[in-house]
Amino acid sequence: MSAHIAPGSPRLHGDRAQRGTVYLVGAGPGDPGLLTIRAAALLDSCDLVFHDHLVSEGVLARASRTAVRVDVGKVGHGPSADQIAISASLVQAARAGMSVVRLKGGDPYLFGRGAEEALALVEAGVPYEVVPGVSALSAVPARAGIPLTHRGIATSVGVVAGACAGDGRLSEAVSGAAQADTVVAFMALANLEGLVRTLVASGRAADTPAAAIASGTTADETTVVSTLEGLVAAVRIAHLPAPVLVVVGQVVALRDQLVGDARVGAAAAVPADRGNDADRGQQNDPTGVYDLTE
Amino acid sequence: MSAHIAPGSPRLHGDRAQRGTVYLVGAGPGDPGLLTIRAAALLDSCDLVFHDHLVSEGVLARASRTAVRVDVGKVGHGPSADQIAISASLVQAARAGMSVVRLKGGDPYLFGRGAEEALALVEAGVPYEVVPGVSALSAVPARAGIPLTHRGIATSVGVVAGACAGDGRLSEAVSGAAQADTVVAFMALANLEGLVRTLVASGRAADTPAAAIASGTTADETTVVSTLEGLVAAVRIAHLPAPVLVVVGQVVALRDQLVGDARVGAAAAVPADRGNDADRGQQNDPTGVYDLTE
Repeated sequence: MSAHIAPGSPRLHGDRAQRGTVYLVGAGPGDPGLLTIRAAALLDSCDLVFHDHLVSEGVLARASRTAVRVDVGKVGHGPSADQIAISASLVQAARAGMSVVRLKGGDPYLFGRGAEEALALVEAGVPYEVVPGVSALSAVPARAGIPLTHRGIATSVGVVAGACAGDGRLSEAVSGAAQADTVVAFMALANLEGLVRTLVASGRAADTPAAAIASGTTADETTVVSTLEGLVAAVRIAHLPAPVLVVVGQVVALRDQLVGDARVGAAAAVPADRGNDADRGQQNDPTGVYDLTE
Repeated sequence: MSAHIAPGSPRLHGDRAQRGTVYLVGAGPGDPGLLTIRAAALLDSCDLVFHDHLVSEGVLARASRTAVRVDVGKVGHGPSADQIAISASLVQAARAGMSVVRLKGGDPYLFGRGAEEALALVEAGVPYEVVPGVSALSAVPARAGIPLTHRGIATSVGVVAGACAGDGRLSEAVSGAAQADTVVAFMALANLEGLVRTLVASGRAADTPAAAIASGTTADETTVVSTLEGLVAAVRIAHLPAPVLVVVGQVVALRDQLVGDARVGAAAAVPADRGNDADRGQQNDPTGVYDLTE
């Protein structure tokens, strides 16, 4: 038997970024307060920021005034071309001696494709560091009043890319993860019907509590709560915009108890933050929960 | 059909904490640089910090000098008594008008039992806010050179509490999550044999790449890489201390490519940070990867 033991992950020390380095940085789920201290320091000292299209303006505002920003959501000709073009740009900038922050929504190593870019950097001999971020996985449900685990209710979580459901081989991954107590699907809007169908076919009861959360942790956050079988219609009625995170499981039922008047600012924050939301439904209680009944 | 739509999660605004409030705050996986900006601001302004035993000293050092710190890992008489005593302390402190940070390792709503405390606060009418943190889930593997998802290799993740494996009803949760492409087990040291047995019984091949990471993202981080069937012996040989996170799946095999010389400080950081590690195994390459061969 052979085993490898590696000591503590080496990383760059000191306040100033070393030049000619790429930092694969998690931007968190949207709220700039959920950026890490390390990410904020790198944004403040880097020369160049390559960011995903979905990274919020509040997070980008943390970048140094002298740093050049590039929205790589606009690069290239299709997903593969994009990825090759992005990796090439990172290598080129680092070789020019720049300190480069590659800013990805959420966490770079959980649906962030960070490792694809890291492999390209290794191949090119460019030094890099991965800076983990707060993933939408638990942060978005948490802000919506939904824990992923809870004693006696859920001790396992299945995490899937919603876009994969109903897509032959890829939906096997969803079927597998569907056996966990709580299921969380990223990027769940475009193929929501396929996702729900796959989950029901995998044995999840049609009346399992389910939630869809759009633009989680931002001022535009909107949460729809329904049953699994009712989720597609509920999301359609609410006109949820992408990105949407879906949570399925008994933990969703805890939301009614957790989003009480006791939560800070529960009643007061609604008119101030969400004054333009009257057209989304009829406001029927002081906590700002809307009720849509067909 | 009935559905509920709630607008953006209300939360406290402003730099100074409102008094008489409890903040359920994720401390991240250990590295103080992975604390969020929001968490750091609350630590800087609160009156009282109740923290888990495992929260690192580097994170606690972010608390205001005037804040009273209480290690609630030492409270009570057994897990249930602990939880009741902690919730009672939070309520009491908030009612006394204090701004209270309840600091939990990782993220409060993913194996953090945060929702149990939130329910107690709602019941007592105490205002609270959940501040999501960087979970060990992807941060610890990322620092060890392992992504959780990777195109063509893994599009789903199963997350379990390692302690539940082999425990009758609870191991059903592990069996379910074991069907995902990548499996991550928290708190995996105490019952590692049961975890491996449950995963193999659930259909994971015995030669699936597996990693165990102790004290991830801290200076004491140690990573053991093996096969699933070889993991128990490898962890024993390495004398890994708790807490240990286990990752099982083909993504673990990417580590050899990702932890190259190109990673920042790869060669240089080892002697400086880990000079006392010679007794853990024989150092056999400049990246600080140890090889233990029986």
